[in-house]
Amino acid sequence: MVKNPAPAEAAPGEFERIRRYFAPLAGPGGLGLTDDAALVDCRAEHRLVVTADAIVAGVHFLPDDPPDLVAKKLLRVNLSDLAAMGARPLYYLLTTALPPALGADWVAAFARGLGEDQRLYGVELLGGDSVSTPGPASLSLTAIGEVAAGAEIRRSGARPGDDLWVSGTIGDAHLGLGILRGGYAQLAAEHRAALIRRFQLPEPRVTLGPALAGVAHAMIDVSDGLLADLGHICETSHVAAVVELGALPLSGAARAAVALEPAGASRLATGGDDYELLFTIAPEAADIVRGLSAGVGVAVTRIGRIEGGDGVRLTDLAGRDIAVERAGYRHF
Amino acid sequence: MVKNPAPAEAAPGEFERIRRYFAPLAGPGGLGLTDDAALVDCRAEHRLVVTADAIVAGVHFLPDDPPDLVAKKLLRVNLSDLAAMGARPLYYLLTTALPPALGADWVAAFARGLGEDQRLYGVELLGGDSVSTPGPASLSLTAIGEVAAGAEIRRSGARPGDDLWVSGTIGDAHLGLGILRGGYAQLAAEHRAALIRRFQLPEPRVTLGPALAGVAHAMIDVSDGLLADLGHICETSHVAAVVELGALPLSGAARAAVALEPAGASRLATGGDDYELLFTIAPEAADIVRGLSAGVGVAVTRIGRIEGGDGVRLTDLAGRDIAVERAGYRHF
Repeated sequence: MVKNPAPAEAAPGEFERIRRYFAPLAGPGGLGLTDDAALVDCRAEHRLVVTADAIVAGVHFLPDDPPDLVAKKLLRVNLSDLAAMGARPLYYLLTTALPPALGADWVAAFARGLGEDQRLYGVELLGGDSVSTPGPASLSLTAIGEVAAGAEIRRSGARPGDDLWVSGTIGDAHLGLGILRGGYAQLAAEHRAALIRRFQLPEPRVTLGPALAGVAHAMIDVSDGLLADLGHICETSHVAAVVELGALPLSGAARAAVALEPAGASRLATGGDDYELLFTIAPEAADIVRGLSAGVGVAVTRIGRIEGGDGVRLTDLAGRDIAVERAGYRHF
Repeated sequence: MVKNPAPAEAAPGEFERIRRYFAPLAGPGGLGLTDDAALVDCRAEHRLVVTADAIVAGVHFLPDDPPDLVAKKLLRVNLSDLAAMGARPLYYLLTTALPPALGADWVAAFARGLGEDQRLYGVELLGGDSVSTPGPASLSLTAIGEVAAGAEIRRSGARPGDDLWVSGTIGDAHLGLGILRGGYAQLAAEHRAALIRRFQLPEPRVTLGPALAGVAHAMIDVSDGLLADLGHICETSHVAAVVELGALPLSGAARAAVALEPAGASRLATGGDDYELLFTIAPEAADIVRGLSAGVGVAVTRIGRIEGGDGVRLTDLAGRDIAVERAGYRHF
């Protein structure tokens, strides 16, 4: 699958890399990475769901980040997108543009991370490409999942009167990034490590997402920040939303961080990278959702409600608006 | 679909780029690029076929190459991979890592090229990602096609006794690259332009490929070089192949180039980037193939045969081996 229009520049080492590190990750559909393309069988009454992300060294990860964690995060953010549609992950394709200076150890650790997550999430490599670059490492991953036809959960189904729920805990990754940038120096080492880990290694809700089919009216994964992603639901659903800051589920480490810097609490609602599921349900479905949550072992919390109108508000316990600095970045 | 773990580094311009240039390329399956992932319907008794390629500025294309041609070539090399499996192209996903210095004009021209090829090949954008990079532009494209279940054409089906055929003409792109690097200065301007164009803008055989289902025993697209790609067929099919140099179909421009430098003739069989289809058939299927060729308007030529054993030989008219310098690069 390598196509190099200027063969003289191709490093034969690239091919050896692929053979050695990536070919073993290929499943039967990938045909051992020995054909022009890979075959994907579709089950009757099902649809495939596809998504892609790119990351660049020095922008989305640091050159000295552990390569296995870089690989896992790249895969997991895509699995999170599939989960947000209610889809079960199946396959992925990977293209890597790597600087020659990046040694075999880096690639080996990167591939080891992928292999570990393949087993964890039951996905397999279908194909891709490996090329050389004079610039920073640039990686792109396309994930493919499946969903029963009609069971996909879109962003556009939220209705006034719905309750708003979120999985897991919110703000950990934002705090973890802050710690990596030198913040929260007074926080206990154990909390610091936990928050950094949440930033480096998200846990896509791959079982909760599909379980919410037929229950959630609208769903998105929290990647740009809770309020920004909620904004996407509101925009495509033509509704408004209210989130109560005090209702946000915080981890023990996040609570400790907020205790140190109370002024930063509202930023937990705007920081990105949580990769939790944010979804709306009819209020009477609360018990069903609690049951599903218990079944898959992922906590869920009601954090607000959907109303008529437009826009997203963050409020305190008394219902007063809390001003937020920025609502994160926009998806397309 | 943008996931930026370090939001402070994200240029808001990226999102405007996506909205302005890429969102208009999205088809209904892409949900207007407003959901977490895109949906793909699978037809009953069909399989999807997926492939991905990456290209980097300064390695696979030059920073001052026309952006619309860069876009088209990236899309077309992937459509060629689908065609080589006998698949009909349907969709693609695109991730771009672009340096901020690359202006809106470049992106607009790049997107215009994609739009033109979408109409030409009947494919649509399903999703992707756009991020910023401090390095050279780095692009990755995943193409999705479909094939009737069982009609896919693998590399592994070649049998001793098969004849070996190729579509179109061979070696043009190799010569075009040579011209771009300063060679063939004496060649007529018209021939030079034609060969450069074949290098910059391959024509994937998207109708011939699927038409050969049930006829071709094995197929591959010529990307690394005719002999190298034939080697992949031989390796996976456990057969040998003989190609007669004089039988290779050459364009008028390539014949003129060979007349100027006869010693370069054998390099036409090793140069890459032709994106023609190389396939094997039973000798008695020749008339069927000629009929299909006429029906889709793509020339086909018998250039050799498959034998027992292993390895690929290039011979002259008298059947004597011609030594070749290198057999191109290996795929994975």
